[in-house]
Amino acid sequence: MQIDILSLFPEMFSGPLTESIIGKAIEKDLLDVEVTDFRDYTTNKQHHVDDEPYGGGAGMLLQAQPIFDALDAIEAKKGGLGRVILLDPAGRQFTQEVAEELSQEDHLTFICGHYEGYDERIRTRVTDEISLGDFVLTGGELGAMVVLDATVRLLPNVLGNAASAAGDSFSNGLLEYPQYTRPADFRGLKVPAVLTSGNHQKIAEWRRKESLRRTFLRRPDLLKNVTLDDQDRKWLREFATMTNKDEN
Amino acid sequence: MQIDILSLFPEMFSGPLTESIIGKAIEKDLLDVEVTDFRDYTTNKQHHVDDEPYGGGAGMLLQAQPIFDALDAIEAKKGGLGRVILLDPAGRQFTQEVAEELSQEDHLTFICGHYEGYDERIRTRVTDEISLGDFVLTGGELGAMVVLDATVRLLPNVLGNAASAAGDSFSNGLLEYPQYTRPADFRGLKVPAVLTSGNHQKIAEWRRKESLRRTFLRRPDLLKNVTLDDQDRKWLREFATMTNKDEN
Repeated sequence: MQIDILSLFPEMFSGPLTESIIGKAIEKDLLDVEVTDFRDYTTNKQHHVDDEPYGGGAGMLLQAQPIFDALDAIEAKKGGLGRVILLDPAGRQFTQEVAEELSQEDHLTFICGHYEGYDERIRTRVTDEISLGDFVLTGGELGAMVVLDATVRLLPNVLGNAASAAGDSFSNGLLEYPQYTRPADFRGLKVPAVLTSGNHQKIAEWRRKESLRRTFLRRPDLLKNVTLDDQDRKWLREFATMTNKDEN
Repeated sequence: MQIDILSLFPEMFSGPLTESIIGKAIEKDLLDVEVTDFRDYTTNKQHHVDDEPYGGGAGMLLQAQPIFDALDAIEAKKGGLGRVILLDPAGRQFTQEVAEELSQEDHLTFICGHYEGYDERIRTRVTDEISLGDFVLTGGELGAMVVLDATVRLLPNVLGNAASAAGDSFSNGLLEYPQYTRPADFRGLKVPAVLTSGNHQKIAEWRRKESLRRTFLRRPDLLKNVTLDDQDRKWLREFATMTNKDEN
């Protein structure tokens, strides 16, 4: 997969591109990442990338020119841009489904905004506006890294263990069940006995039940997209009764 | 504000901690960030931090011991841990409201998980489980950086222009209106005439209307928490009519 990133702060990517799963994918030649500092494409002598908003108001806006010219240069060099992604609070909510969709692409180009906003005309070059959530970040860099990390780990051969991604939260529509590793007793906190019982059917049942319980208590909205069997529904009625009792 | 971060990949923070708004806040002595590699707190000879899950299954889990001991050491050194935050898909959804809440604290400690999960007993040391959204990342590092960035930019004197944070998306409950900067005509794409009219009342009206339009089209769910006046409601009826016509 080919990744281009337009940013005024290329150094922000130095750690994540070498240390994380992204770095491992680059090492394995599964990923090629190029970060372009679009300040290099300014046509003014001072290399300014921002200017005041028309109509007044606080803050500075990224100008269209350096971004357009940087995109043109990448397009000419690589024969295209692929999906052009702008991180913006007004964009489509990023989810695991979007990560799966992006992981099918050959080429992604990220535009990382900064300062207080950007010239609206930049959106004309964008195919996907994506929002991480209802919060405001200083720039698009961290958002681009998050989208990249979630996407790249889904590529074939990136994660060491293929089974790992399949066992994630959300992969079966439920939150993950509680997990434990050694020691069995740590500072008096004990591992549930069923997990050390060696009874694989009981363990599988316990995990399904605890996945359902956590989802019921924390994210009941997720349950409507999950295929439930009779046993699942019985457990859910049990949790509902317990919750009612707690409230009384 | 005092920030402690527990991570197996301290180098991931090198760029973001120097380049971003977090770096600026550190320079201004508004923020003190310390990253602790909890591998240094392992008590086994091989410095392993992970082990297989009880009950079987793919992947390795972070053990409780190195995290507990690293937290104990920070607590002893700093007289406390403040809010202890774990990034987890099962956590409370991160929003601007959560960022505002965290920005009131004196001390935040982030635990960055990695590998396929962590021993459930680690949650007993955590005060806040936070989720960035319904997607899966390789580790907690990027999530911690996102939460930090959104939080730190709300601290007094961090952003250069105090008016900037007040004009963000979500700060008045609406998405931001389109913004433009020079030139007025770029590659044939023109700035809306009203913005160069000098008529401040008309500009304010246009911005309110476009903020409402974008919110109506992209995030109608946000409108229920916004105080609307008669003019706002008239505009919203106008947008609804236009949408219906488009569908016919």
